[in-house]
Amino acid sequence: MATVTIIGSGMMGSSLAFPIRENGNEVRLVGSPLDNEIIDACIKNNRHPKLDYDFPAGFEFYYNKDMTCAINGADLIVCGVSSFGVDWFSEYVIPHLNDGVPVISVTKGLFDLPDGKLITYPDIWEKRAAECGKKIDFCAIGGPCTSYELAGHDQTEVTFCGRKRDVIEKIKNVMETYYYHISLSTDIVGVEIAVALKNGYALAVALTIGLNQKRLGIDSGLHYNSQAAVFAQSAREMHRLLKMQNADNIENLALGLGDLYVTVYGGRTRLIGILLGRGVGIDEAKKELMGVTLESLVVAERVARAVKKRAASGEVNIADFPLLMHVDALLKGEVSADIPWNLFEK
Amino acid sequence: MATVTIIGSGMMGSSLAFPIRENGNEVRLVGSPLDNEIIDACIKNNRHPKLDYDFPAGFEFYYNKDMTCAINGADLIVCGVSSFGVDWFSEYVIPHLNDGVPVISVTKGLFDLPDGKLITYPDIWEKRAAECGKKIDFCAIGGPCTSYELAGHDQTEVTFCGRKRDVIEKIKNVMETYYYHISLSTDIVGVEIAVALKNGYALAVALTIGLNQKRLGIDSGLHYNSQAAVFAQSAREMHRLLKMQNADNIENLALGLGDLYVTVYGGRTRLIGILLGRGVGIDEAKKELMGVTLESLVVAERVARAVKKRAASGEVNIADFPLLMHVDALLKGEVSADIPWNLFEK
Repeated sequence: MATVTIIGSGMMGSSLAFPIRENGNEVRLVGSPLDNEIIDACIKNNRHPKLDYDFPAGFEFYYNKDMTCAINGADLIVCGVSSFGVDWFSEYVIPHLNDGVPVISVTKGLFDLPDGKLITYPDIWEKRAAECGKKIDFCAIGGPCTSYELAGHDQTEVTFCGRKRDVIEKIKNVMETYYYHISLSTDIVGVEIAVALKNGYALAVALTIGLNQKRLGIDSGLHYNSQAAVFAQSAREMHRLLKMQNADNIENLALGLGDLYVTVYGGRTRLIGILLGRGVGIDEAKKELMGVTLESLVVAERVARAVKKRAASGEVNIADFPLLMHVDALLKGEVSADIPWNLFEK
Repeated sequence: MATVTIIGSGMMGSSLAFPIRENGNEVRLVGSPLDNEIIDACIKNNRHPKLDYDFPAGFEFYYNKDMTCAINGADLIVCGVSSFGVDWFSEYVIPHLNDGVPVISVTKGLFDLPDGKLITYPDIWEKRAAECGKKIDFCAIGGPCTSYELAGHDQTEVTFCGRKRDVIEKIKNVMETYYYHISLSTDIVGVEIAVALKNGYALAVALTIGLNQKRLGIDSGLHYNSQAAVFAQSAREMHRLLKMQNADNIENLALGLGDLYVTVYGGRTRLIGILLGRGVGIDEAKKELMGVTLESLVVAERVARAVKKRAASGEVNIADFPLLMHVDALLKGEVSADIPWNLFEK
C-alpha cells in the first residue's frame, strides 16, 4: 500500500483517484487555489460535483492551504492540474515536494523553444526541481482517457512514461486495475508529443462536420468520408512531426492516434471545430465557449510555430503539414475553414 | 472525354459513376446477372434504388446480357462488384475485356496462399487475363469512401494503385473532381492490404460498444476510452501486418486507418461487432443480419490464417496480434467477446 497525493481536484485528477484507491492505497486529494468549492462539495457529498459517481470510501480531502501536510509522507505525487495550472505547479508546488518522491503528471502540453524544438512538462519541471535543490523523477501519462469514463470504470488503456523504467513500473503497480491498463515507455518526448499533437488535429477532423453542416444543414448527419480523410491526413502529419523530434515509431503514433480518436468525440475541441467549420469566426467561436481558452488552440499554435522555424532552417518541408498550417491560420483568424484537400494528395 | 464502363450496379459502382459523369465522360453502367431489377429501376427513375440522389443526366444503363456491347469501345473499365462477385468477374467478364484497356476495381479483399502470403485481386486477375491471352493493367481503389456519401458529393479522399504510374495518372484525370480526391501509389499490395485489414479491426472497435452496453444497458452511450484503446491496438497490429508483407510505410498505414475510421461508423461490420460484444453468439448475430455474409468476417479469417502460418514458420510472433486472434476465435464461435486488454500492454 502506498500513500498517493493528487494535486489538482479537477475531473481528471479526481478520476485518477478511483483506480488508485481501489487498489488499496491511501488517497489524499488536494485542491488548487481555485478548487475550494470543489473540495467543499467533495467533503460534503464524497463526490466530485462534475462526476456521476461517488468516490470509493476512505479518501482524504485537502484544501490548498493544507497542501504541505498532504505532501508530507506521500510515496507518490500525481499532478492533476490543467495546462493552465502548470505555472502555478512549477512556482508554488515544486518547492514543497520531497526529494526522491516521484511525480506523475496527467497534464498534457508542449512548449516550443526559439529554435523550434518542442519540450515537455517533465523537462521543464525537472529543471525547476533542480533549481530548488531536489532530485525528483517526473513522469507523465499519455493516451486516450476521458475522465468521466475512467471514473465510470470503463476499460481504458494509457501509457506511463518516465526516464527510469523501475520508477514507472512501481507507479504502474500502484495504479493499475482491471479497467485501467498501463503500458510503459522511457521515451518521454515521444509519448508527450504524440498525445499533445492530437489537439489541433481533433479540431481539424471536427471542422469537416461543421463544413458539411454549412453545406447541407445542421441536421445533415456526420459525414464520415471527410472525417476519415482528415483523420488519415492527421496520421501522416503526426508521423512527420514525431519524425521531426526523432520519435517516429509505431508505439508513439498509435498512442497519439488513439488519443486523437477519443478527442474527436470528447468535448470542447470538437465543438470549436464544428463552429469554425460552419463559418463562425474564431473570436465568436471562443465567445460561445464562454471565454474558456482551449488547450487545443494553444498547443496547435505552438506546434505550428515550431514547424515554421524548423522549416526556415531547412529541417522540414512546410508543404508536408498543410492541415496543421490551415488550423493555425484559422485559429489566428487569417482564413475561414476550407480544408486544403488537394494538398493531401500524393 | 473518355468512355467508361462500370460493371456492377451496386451502391459503390453506381456512386463512382457520379464523379466520372460530372467530369464530362460517357458512362455505361452495367448490372451483374443479379442486378436486373436495379437496372430496371435505374432506367425508370434515373436513380439507384438505394441512393438518395438522381444520377447526373446522360447515363447509359445496360442489363448484364448486353455487357459485351457496353465493354466494346470503352477506354476504361471500372469493376464495381462486391467481393462475392469476384469469381463471376474472373470467369465471365475478363474473357470479354479488350486487350490494353485498363481496369480499376473498387472491390476490396484478400486471398491467403498456403504459405501465408496474402495476395490481392489485381494479382489474381492479371494472371487470369494472361490465361485469356490478354495484357490488361488491373488497378484498384483504396481508402475511406462510403458510397452514399460519395453520391452526395461529400469531400472524399482515396488512393488509386497500379503497377504503372502513367496508367493510374490517366485514370485519375478521368475520375477526379472537386469532391473526389485521388492520391496515387504503385504499391498495390500495400494499399490493398492496408484497406482490407480494416474490416476485422472495425469489428473489434465495435465490440467495445456492445461490451459496454452489456455492462451498463443499451442506452449507456458509446464509451470512447475503450473504442480508442482498441483503435490504437488496431494501428499497432495493422502496422505489424503491413510489415509482414514488406509494406509498412506511413502512407499505407494512414490509408488503412482512415478506412478503419469510416468502417467503424458505417453499416454492418459495426452492427455485428456490437451484437457480438453484447454476448450474442456468432450464428445468432449472422441471423440478425438476415443471412448476409459479411466481407469483414471472410477477410479477418483469411488474415488470421495467414498470420498463424507465418508464425508457424517463425516469420512473425503470434503474440503481436492478440486482437486479431481474439476476433478470429470469436468469428469461429470458440470464445465470447472479452477484449484481451492485458496483452496490449508494452
